[in-house]
Order: sequence, then structure tokens, then C-alpha cells
Amino acid sequence: MTAIRIGIMGYGNIGRGVERAISQNPDTELVGVFTRRDPSTVQIATENVPVRSVDDLENGAATDVDVLILCGGSATDLPEQTPRYAKMYNVVDSFDTHANIPEHFAAVDAAAKEGGHVGLISCGWDPGLFSLERLFGNVILPEGADYTFWGRGVSQGHSDAVRRIEGVADAKQYTVPVEAALDAVRAGENPDLTTRQKHTRECYVVLEEGADAAEVERQIKEMPNYFADYDTTVHFISQEELTRDHSEMPHGGFVLRSGKTAGGYPCVIEYSLKLGSNPEFTANALVAYARAVHRMSEEGAAGAKTVFDIAPAYLSPLSGEQLRASLL
Amino acid sequence: MTAIRIGIMGYGNIGRGVERAISQNPDTELVGVFTRRDPSTVQIATENVPVRSVDDLENGAATDVDVLILCGGSATDLPEQTPRYAKMYNVVDSFDTHANIPEHFAAVDAAAKEGGHVGLISCGWDPGLFSLERLFGNVILPEGADYTFWGRGVSQGHSDAVRRIEGVADAKQYTVPVEAALDAVRAGENPDLTTRQKHTRECYVVLEEGADAAEVERQIKEMPNYFADYDTTVHFISQEELTRDHSEMPHGGFVLRSGKTAGGYPCVIEYSLKLGSNPEFTANALVAYARAVHRMSEEGAAGAKTVFDIAPAYLSPLSGEQLRASLL
Repeated sequence: MTAIRIGIMGYGNIGRGVERAISQNPDTELVGVFTRRDPSTVQIATENVPVRSVDDLENGAATDVDVLILCGGSATDLPEQTPRYAKMYNVVDSFDTHANIPEHFAAVDAAAKEGGHVGLISCGWDPGLFSLERLFGNVILPEGADYTFWGRGVSQGHSDAVRRIEGVADAKQYTVPVEAALDAVRAGENPDLTTRQKHTRECYVVLEEGADAAEVERQIKEMPNYFADYDTTVHFISQEELTRDHSEMPHGGFVLRSGKTAGGYPCVIEYSLKLGSNPEFTANALVAYARAVHRMSEEGAAGAKTVFDIAPAYLSPLSGEQLRASLL
Repeated sequence: MTAIRIGIMGYGNIGRGVERAISQNPDTELVGVFTRRDPSTVQIATENVPVRSVDDLENGAATDVDVLILCGGSATDLPEQTPRYAKMYNVVDSFDTHANIPEHFAAVDAAAKEGGHVGLISCGWDPGLFSLERLFGNVILPEGADYTFWGRGVSQGHSDAVRRIEGVADAKQYTVPVEAALDAVRAGENPDLTTRQKHTRECYVVLEEGADAAEVERQIKEMPNYFADYDTTVHFISQEELTRDHSEMPHGGFVLRSGKTAGGYPCVIEYSLKLGSNPEFTANALVAYARAVHRMSEEGAAGAKTVFDIAPAYLSPLSGEQLRASLL
């Protein structure tokens, strides 16, 4: 069997995660990390794999790439890159700006169809695996309610927001689901939950020399959208403690569907993730879906796809026969 | 939109559940319950829907059936019925004898291809939704361990086994997952668990007049395969209590995948079901998958399928656009 040849575009946390994930999937192979910088300035972990210029991708010149995994950010990178490269390659991205998914899908769909490629968008765990669970929950229990909780985990967006406050040298923010709310959902109570009732926020903050702790805490807790609607706790710690205890990127969450069958029987479906590393887990999902994209492309598929459009068997290196014998 | 016209073959707990589930899915419609008995002796819940003879199904004569849901048993009904009717109709079954799935798949595949129909086998929650979770867990965390726990719920097979003991008038058996084992898995310990460490068994037994309770309890606890490998508790109760407290068929269970990313980060994926009614929940799954089967057939698909082969979007009455906007 020839390995699926994967290219990585963007070498941040997700890109590094994809590089590592490939090592856990022997039917995949890394053929290059593509960069907009001078390739000689980028050092990657894998030996004997080149760092290549994005110029190598232009006009479909990287003919050794079966699937290009786009590991840039959703704000500015992916809206431009995914349609651009879907014209020339099979691509997978983790676009996660929920509100803009319809627009992104349309742009990728047009480009991928023009080029005869498959472009899978919004892959990862939310959107991604959580989306799948919401769909399964809704179709199996058509009369019911959906609940999604996130955490306990680091939110980059909220950590950045705290760091932008004057007097803050460094900070990490954890999103924490409220156990009592989870328990009410698990008990089939179908509660209406406010933002405050679902999650709390924990901030670990390093102050700059001479900063006013009370003022920083006030600014965090009153920040609209990010914190004002939540019960927030602020812990002031040293840079040493932050580096020692809060350098990882754990995350996770819960998707629940609670409903009744037509005979009135309550049923609760619960899905949860506890992730030591958010970017590495996301990367593992990207590689599994890259396998599916490659196969569907080989079968002649073209256009934009989401996780909803991928038959699960395409994700596995096992044959249908093996899957039925071992996992069904 | 024309409703998907569903026929039910077999009117036990699952068949009744499918009839009810159709009422929760407005894009589906029941066109008949088919029976091997004299139709005039079978009373169904839905008004204005006929009970029809299986003779109506022969030679593909029931042209008003888009999908036939086969609700018989896995021991003798489905191995014969599913291939037989897959030749003439799109069919869905809940065949759950894991060891015989490859053989059943092959028989249904040949028949469905001959007739140009789609035959989905082994649909429900295990096999079914649990199988999907095992697959997702394995592809996202290729280095890890799988765990499946069942319960707390009524096992028909074990209840029947107890009822066959001399001196037992009636009985219900509950399979119960061991909380300590679940917690060890959740903690990422990847334990090797014996049969006894994973589940306990609880029996509620009504004795016949004059029966020897100690002897019945001994026979239960020492029964090979069913109870000998488990910690089993036996409660003797009255028929009145059994009827009052143990007439429902709740069930559920847990699928966990525990593994590490290539960077060494532990991750745990947990899926669980808490079902007020096992047959009604199973029926809900059958109807959602009947929708998918109908659509795939309309697109020209043919042959046997399992849940692994169905792109999730086919399960929902919503369009791709609606799904992306609301659930992704």
C-alpha cells in the first residue's frame, strides 16, 4: 500500500500536532511543511522531510501532495488559504468561526469543484466531533434538547483578552463547566440554562511590577462578552508559577442530548472529551479526516465537505470487512 | 416533500417502537405492519394503517414500501428474512449476533445487489451507535484502548436463563457496570479488566410455591457463562413487586477510548447512553437509518451497508445547508 502523502501548511501548535499525528498513522507520510517564511529559518521535528516554500504549492506544482492540511488561523489565514489551495489540492482545515461557516463552505465548494478536488472544512472537535454528536443526538431523539459544555480547558481567546489589560504581564484563562448544570441535564431535567449557569471562568494572572491588582481584577470581571456574564475568579501568581503549572493546553467538553421517545421514555446521550492537549487531539482528527478526503478524491468526489458528509468507514485504515469483524 | 413510506415486519417490542418513532419523524409514514399471522388477529396502535399479510411482500408486490424495517429476532428471523427481503426492498435490521455479522453481511449484500436495493444491517445502539463511537475513538486516538460497559439495564437473555431454572416463576436480570472500573478508565489508567471487574449482575426472582430459595440462588450464581464469572446478587420478591417495579426495559452503557497523542498527552473519549426504554430507543435509531437508506437508494446505491458506511448527513431531514448552519 502506498502511504497517503500529506503536506502541512502553517507550523504553529496545530501544524506541529499534525506532524506528530502522522507518526501514529503508518499509512500516512509527511512530504513537506510549507511556509511563507524563508524555509531555511524553519526547523521541524521530523528528520529527512523538507521545509518548503509556499511557492512550491502554486499552480498545483507540489504533485507529491495527496492532501494538504491547512493549519493556519480562522480569522485571516483559512478564509483566504482554503479556497485558494482547494483549487489545486485536496485540503483539510479546522475553520472554527461558526457564524462564517456557510460563507467559507461556499467559497471552498466553488474552488474545489473547479479544481476537481475535495475540501473538508471545520474539522476537529468543535466544530467536528461535537458537531457529529449533535447530529446523531438530534436524529435519534428528534424530540429533545441539546447541550454543549466546554472545559475544563484553556481558552486562547480569553487568555489573550486578559493579557491585553494594562498591568498584566501574562495570563491563562480556563473555561470550566458548572457541575450542577451538567447534573441537571444528565438527570433529564431539560433545564433552561443561562450563560452564567453553564460555565465559570478562572484566570491565572501575572502582574507587571507595580500594577494595581484590584483594578486589573475589576477590568477582567467587567469585560463585556468575555467575562461580564460569568462568575469569574482571578488568581494572581508569579511568572514562574504560570510557566510551571499552566503551560499546557488541556481542553475538553460535553455534548448532551436529552429527550423522550414517543412512548414517553426519557433518554440521555452524553459525549465527553478530556484532552491533555487540545492542539494535538485536533491534529489527530485532521489526519484521520485527511485519510477520508484522499479516499473520496480517489473515488472521484469533488467539492466542499464537512464531517457530516463523510461515511465513518473512510476514516479508518481498516477494510470494511475488518471493521465489521472488529468494531461493529 | 413526499414522506418516506415505511413498512414494519414483526410486531414485538421493536416493531411497536418503530411504529411510535414514525410519529416523531414527520417526513416518514407507516404504510403497513406485515405479519405471518392472520392480519385480522393483529391489532396495531396507529389508526388508518392496515395490518397486511407477508404474502403482500412477495415478489416485490408492496410497491408502496420505500423501506422495510425488519423487527424480528437475530437468532432465527433475521438471518432468513433480511436477505430474502433485501432482494425485493430496501431493508433495515437490528441483527445483533456479533459473531455472525460477517456471514449475515455477505448474504444481505448478495441479495441486495441482485435486487438493486440497499440493506442496512446491525442498526441500533450496540451494534450501531456504540460501534460508531468505537470507530471514531480508534481513528482519532490510534494508540489507546477500547472499553465498552453495558447497563444499568435489563438483559433479556439473562432474564430468560433465570426463568428456565426449576422453581422460578418469573425473573428480571439487570446488568450493572462497576463504577470503580469506569472511574479507572476515565482516569486514563488503561486497566486490564476481568469480566468480574467490569459488571455485576442483579436478579429479581419470583419463586414458585414451595421452591427452595437457597437452591435457586445457588443455581443462578453457578450458571456457566451467564453468571459464574460475575458477582451476582439475587433478590426474592413477589410477582406483584416484580410487575410493579421491574416491568420496564431500561438500558444503556458506556463506550470509552483512552489513549495518548504522539506528544504523550492522555486523552479520554467517553460516550454514554441512559435509556428509559431499550426497544424504543433502538426503534428511533432504525427510523433515522431508514431515512438514510431511502436517500442512498434514490441516489442509486445498492448492497449491504452498516452504520460505518452511512454519511451522517443522510440521517437528518435537514438539508446540508441547514445542518451546517445549525449543528456544525
